[in-house]
Parts: sequence; structure tokens; C-alpha cells
Amino acid sequence: MRMKFHEQLDELTDRLASMCRLAGDAVRAATDALVRADLPLAERVFDLNEQIEELRGPCEDLAMALLALQGPVARDLRQVVTGVHLVSRMGGLVQHVAESVRRRHPEHVASGEAEEVLSQMGRVAAELAGLAERVLRTHDLELAAEIGRRDDELDDLHRRLLALIEDPAWTGSIPAAVDVTLLGRFYERFGDHTVTVGRRVISLVSGEQMTP
Amino acid sequence: MRMKFHEQLDELTDRLASMCRLAGDAVRAATDALVRADLPLAERVFDLNEQIEELRGPCEDLAMALLALQGPVARDLRQVVTGVHLVSRMGGLVQHVAESVRRRHPEHVASGEAEEVLSQMGRVAAELAGLAERVLRTHDLELAAEIGRRDDELDDLHRRLLALIEDPAWTGSIPAAVDVTLLGRFYERFGDHTVTVGRRVISLVSGEQMTP
Repeated sequence: MRMKFHEQLDELTDRLASMCRLAGDAVRAATDALVRADLPLAERVFDLNEQIEELRGPCEDLAMALLALQGPVARDLRQVVTGVHLVSRMGGLVQHVAESVRRRHPEHVASGEAEEVLSQMGRVAAELAGLAERVLRTHDLELAAEIGRRDDELDDLHRRLLALIEDPAWTGSIPAAVDVTLLGRFYERFGDHTVTVGRRVISLVSGEQMTP
Repeated sequence: MRMKFHEQLDELTDRLASMCRLAGDAVRAATDALVRADLPLAERVFDLNEQIEELRGPCEDLAMALLALQGPVARDLRQVVTGVHLVSRMGGLVQHVAESVRRRHPEHVASGEAEEVLSQMGRVAAELAGLAERVLRTHDLELAAEIGRRDDELDDLHRRLLALIEDPAWTGSIPAAVDVTLLGRFYERFGDHTVTVGRRVISLVSGEQMTP
């Protein structure tokens, strides 16, 4: 029974890792689409998001099977189950970025320094998804701490972005400010979710290590 | 066993209903705080949100106990479990509104027509939380449909709000546009969550009715 539990747990975290990898691919594609005002690349984000959603059902089934093996008191395990929801939400946030690109096409959603900061946020977000993937696959506590540090970087970029559009020197329009505000928030939430996923895996793994 | 399952299910939906009621109280307080730039009222939102989070743990415990009774394949039941997460998220969104009030105090976050539309969004959001509460308590399919209709109203208000700040005639500043953009999104997401909660309860209840 115990053996089966651990095998299934590994399978669950592996599948969650695959969802994270897709979310990373999606955020990379969405950011490239944003910077180049590239419509086919934005459409690619919708495909990737569909793939994430396809993994979600089997992943939740597995999580529920695990809960049934473990009984109702496994609080850490429950948190991994709701982790499936978080990764799916990451895909949804990236989709919002792609939708902006589509809505403003052939115009760019953002320009100048704002576009540059968003592009950096996209790069960090993709790296965060990659880190979350590796934490899920390796259960490495050091890597989980690294997620928190990189997310601080994302938060700094987010503050820089808001300061940029709130600066009287900024020459963009109000609709552009609205777009940039929402885009910044999408990337920031994406990062928050990777932190939560990482933290939950670690709490599950360390709980497991304490009660071998 | 069957009897116990139904009793526990009723208790779970009742508790979720209480969380919805608190979310409704919170969104009402946050919106009043927003319109009056009222700091103590904004602080009240943080208290209410704490109460929501206090209900969350026992609610999730009950949901997990139910899942253990029912076995791993109860997809509808699982959706109610993740419903706990949604209601907790509603509280989080309302807290963002209160944080805006606190950040801009003693200034108003919004003014003029934008403030008026936000105030209407807050009123509809509170009504949506009330409807979600009643759906959870009564399992009334008509009421669940009503949530969808009222949420359309919220979406219309959201579009009106964005049109307002994107209109060249709008005289507000960019920081005000940023605030209003985010506030509009918070209310819109709040409404979406009530729709999802309602839909999940209905799918659970109709599933139960089909297999009595």
C-alpha cells in the first residue's frame, strides 16, 4: 500500500510538472507574441492552454485516487490537489496575454520601455514555470527557495512597470495604460502561483520525509 | 452510509454558504469604503476576510471526509471541494479593493462616473454572493440560472467602466486609470467565481438526483 502510494505520488507530481512545462512554453509564446504583435504565435498560446486543460482531468483523477489511499486527513496532499487548479490558472493567465495581442493586432499592445519590462516579466515568468517544473520532478528544497527569489525579481519588474505608466513623463494613452496594467497583473499572478506550487510540493515532501 | 453522506454534504454546502455570506458582507463593506474613502470600513474588510479564511480549513476537512466516503471517482463532488478555494479567492479579491482604499486614503480611489459604476459593480457583486449563498442552501436550479443573468449585468458594467476610462473625454490621471482598471477586474472575477460555485452545486445536486 505504502509503495503504491509513493509511486502514485511521483506520478502525480510528474504530471503536474508537465503542466508547468506547458505553462512555461505558453508564457514564452505569449510574451513573444506580445513583443512582435504576432497573431499566429498568440493562437499557439490557445493550443498550449488546451493541452494544459487536457492534462488537468487525469491529474485530478490521480490526485483523488491518492487522497482515497491516504484517507481524509492528508492536509499536505490536499494542497497538492489544489495545486492542479493553480497550474491550470497559470495557463488561463497566459491566455489573457494572448487575447490582448489578438485584440490589438496589428498594433502592439505596449511599446517602448513598458513593452521591454513586460518582455522581461515574461522571461522571468517562463523561468519560474521551469523552476516549478524542476521542483515537482526533483523535490529539491534549494530550487524551491530559488522560486521565491526569482519571484521577488518579477515583483520588482511589476513595480517598475506601474511606476513607468504612472510617471507624468509617460506619453502613452489611457487604453494603453489599461492594457499594461492588466498584463503586469497577469504576469505577477502567474509568478505567485509558481511560488505556491513550489511551497506545497516542499511541504508535502518534507512531511513525507518526517513520517517515513 | 448513504444517509451520512447526504448529511455531510448538506453541512458542507451550508458552510460554503456561510463563506459566501461573509464574502458578500466583505464586498459590500469594501465598496462602501471605496465610495466614501472610509479607512475603518476598509479595515473591516480585512477582518471579514480573516473570518472567511477561518472557515476554509474546517470546510476543506469536511470536503475531504466526504470524498473519502464517496470514493475517488466523484467528479462533481471534487468540484465542490475546489469550490472552497473559489470562495476563499472571492475574499482575496475583495481585500484588494480594500487595499486600494487604504493606499489612496484620504483621497478617493475613483471619482465621478467611474466611482459610480464601481459602486454599482459592488452592489451587483454583493447580490451575486447572496445568490450563491442561497443556491448553496436551497439547491434551487432557478436561482443558479439567476446568478448567470446577474453576472452578465456585472460584465456589462465592467465594459462600461473600461469604455469610460478609455474615452478621450475622460479627464482622470493615469494612476487613477490603473486603479480603476484593477478594481473593475477584481469585481468581474468575483462575479465569475459566484457563477462557477453556483454551477458546481447544481451539477452536484442534479447528479445526486439522477442517482438517488
